[in-house]
Amino acid sequence: MGTEFLKIKECDEAIDIIQKLFDDNIKPQSEEIDVSEAYGRILYEDVYSRMDFPPFNKALKDGFAILSEDSFGASEESPNTLEIIDFLEAGSTTDKKVEKGKCIEISTGAAMPEGAESVIMVEYCEKLDDGKVNLLTTATPSQDVAKKGSDIEEGKLILKKGDFLNPGKIGVLLSQGFETIEVYKKPSVGVISSGNEIMMQGEELSYGKIYDVNGNMIKNDAVSCGANAKFLGIMRDNYDEVKEKITESLNEVDVLLCSGGTSAGLGDVLKHVLDELGEVYIHGISVQPGKPTIVGVIDEKLVIGLPGNPVSALMIFNAFVAQPLTKLAGIDKDFELKTVKGKMTRRIHSPVGRMQYQLVKVNGEDVQPIFKDSGAIFSLSSADGYVKVPKSVELLDEGEKVEVYLFN
Amino acid sequence: MGTEFLKIKECDEAIDIIQKLFDDNIKPQSEEIDVSEAYGRILYEDVYSRMDFPPFNKALKDGFAILSEDSFGASEESPNTLEIIDFLEAGSTTDKKVEKGKCIEISTGAAMPEGAESVIMVEYCEKLDDGKVNLLTTATPSQDVAKKGSDIEEGKLILKKGDFLNPGKIGVLLSQGFETIEVYKKPSVGVISSGNEIMMQGEELSYGKIYDVNGNMIKNDAVSCGANAKFLGIMRDNYDEVKEKITESLNEVDVLLCSGGTSAGLGDVLKHVLDELGEVYIHGISVQPGKPTIVGVIDEKLVIGLPGNPVSALMIFNAFVAQPLTKLAGIDKDFELKTVKGKMTRRIHSPVGRMQYQLVKVNGEDVQPIFKDSGAIFSLSSADGYVKVPKSVELLDEGEKVEVYLFN
Repeated sequence: MGTEFLKIKECDEAIDIIQKLFDDNIKPQSEEIDVSEAYGRILYEDVYSRMDFPPFNKALKDGFAILSEDSFGASEESPNTLEIIDFLEAGSTTDKKVEKGKCIEISTGAAMPEGAESVIMVEYCEKLDDGKVNLLTTATPSQDVAKKGSDIEEGKLILKKGDFLNPGKIGVLLSQGFETIEVYKKPSVGVISSGNEIMMQGEELSYGKIYDVNGNMIKNDAVSCGANAKFLGIMRDNYDEVKEKITESLNEVDVLLCSGGTSAGLGDVLKHVLDELGEVYIHGISVQPGKPTIVGVIDEKLVIGLPGNPVSALMIFNAFVAQPLTKLAGIDKDFELKTVKGKMTRRIHSPVGRMQYQLVKVNGEDVQPIFKDSGAIFSLSSADGYVKVPKSVELLDEGEKVEVYLFN
Repeated sequence: MGTEFLKIKECDEAIDIIQKLFDDNIKPQSEEIDVSEAYGRILYEDVYSRMDFPPFNKALKDGFAILSEDSFGASEESPNTLEIIDFLEAGSTTDKKVEKGKCIEISTGAAMPEGAESVIMVEYCEKLDDGKVNLLTTATPSQDVAKKGSDIEEGKLILKKGDFLNPGKIGVLLSQGFETIEVYKKPSVGVISSGNEIMMQGEELSYGKIYDVNGNMIKNDAVSCGANAKFLGIMRDNYDEVKEKITESLNEVDVLLCSGGTSAGLGDVLKHVLDELGEVYIHGISVQPGKPTIVGVIDEKLVIGLPGNPVSALMIFNAFVAQPLTKLAGIDKDFELKTVKGKMTRRIHSPVGRMQYQLVKVNGEDVQPIFKDSGAIFSLSSADGYVKVPKSVELLDEGEKVEVYLFN
């Protein structure tokens, strides 16, 4: 049990090291998905328009497609009379051509017939019985016509790499006929739990055992960061089993998150396995809770050992892993953990010499510390996030302004 | 083309009517899902704890399980010596009982052996060669022991109906052995497009046609509101086809969103079909854009006709449908459309007598109106939401403070 923490890091240092390990080892990847299923995904490519939009000169109103000069001087007192030679609905076409003295009745959205360059709204016309129409006003050139390409020109940059695909942007892609699109692939994350005392939900709990929490909890947290995450099961914390399970899991995922049970055993074993198969970069972070955190790289894949205690595991995941994971998912290059400001409702004491992360509940402006021993899982039913108490600070007073780092 | 709008409503009235139609006709439903897949879902039931947690008196430290009285008076100068009768790891049990003068070596997380009620940390002990240990300090009763049920007592309310299942709450459920949980079922929404001019992506566009935007765009917007939404295809806007498609679709979904192409044809047909099969509650909303909106009920299912123009369809969906749909999904009983405050970067004019929704882009404090004719799909690539210009207001000046309703 005498783990030596040779690579213990301060919090800020650990954040930087982990971000750099992600950047250096795991490149963002893309995948092609259907535009119809794209909500919430992130574009992996700049997108250029494939065609002019509208793809033709389009009538914007119901009315008559004319040569605008045929309307010049028209008024209610002195209308100009034209011959109606056809009727065009949206989606229809005609062989007929509009020439001087002639017009085609047209619906909104229809392609303008050859020759015509203005639409005169039906409200300003008087249809006669003999296939003719009186124009009661003058139309300007191109009146109520959207010119081909006036909305989007072919070859124009319409969406950018990194764009979040909301319904409006999906609409733009659909209008251009895109069926599929390249988006950031969700980072592949595996979660393994360890400990002789843990059992799976659905099993009957024998005395001395508890249900595994970290596996599926951390999996869901990784999902909330945009990852494709899966729980890979429980391993016993002996060297051979850990080595085998990790080797096997790294064939499937790019980031592997392990956590012990409540025992300290896994940290030691994980360190030795990482030393043999790869390299350890962090062994211990100077933060309460979460000292046993370990971070290593095996074949350009990250292996991170989280504390076994679920509250600690959740905090360490959020503080050190959520941000690089979210960036890898392409969600935001400038992604920062979400924070809110508020005031402490009670004084909290903190050990000097180590950063402390204090679990809190947020209620409007009120930031209420949750005091339970660090093993208390029930505190997670009400925790909204944590405040950081720097290692040089001994207490946060009641009423003191703090910044809360919110959980997903 | 002479649609009569007999049930035209003001915006606020329309919002209330649509909310009431949802409330009166469509009851929220639940479904059972795996806790391991629960991120982002909403609890449909209050959840009570099934068992005490921890389920046994649990050692919080590595050390020795003792009768605390055996440590009374112990110090470095004058240690108390106990016989070690067993070793307990987390997850293990023993038949042996701790009695006066005896102790069991114990790991963090292990169940306390019978008889013992305190743990004395390994740091305050000196292990001897002959199976004995010197205690160097006094332990208080229950020291470093989490009592059975101290974290969660059996039968206690631990999570509430309506709770958003974040990773922490999922952790609480896992600790209690839940494999599945009842959550709000995603509302079932279908989207149909209409218009003779629209074609599906992947088809080669013939002259005068455009690709359908509304179907999959509005489907994705419904997904963003927590719905299980699907695009049900394109219908031609003649009476028989619309009636058949709607009847058939309502077997599958609870909310049906239809939208025309750019032509005004669908509104008429939809009104007649709704009159025959059910009842029309809104026919026209006094808002620019979006006048042709129609809302009806057929057999306790909602049928909503959106404007054909994609920009209008998206705004009307967000302004009138997103909120009741999100509430039906259980996401938040007090759900309101997300808003941000800012200042207009340019003056905008608005027609008096009708509410106007002005599309805008938000950049920090700056709210920039997007001026394009209302058919301009490209405006959706940069639109963040809209500002409301009330019907009595003729202009919003540059620098004027406004509230922006954000799109999902």
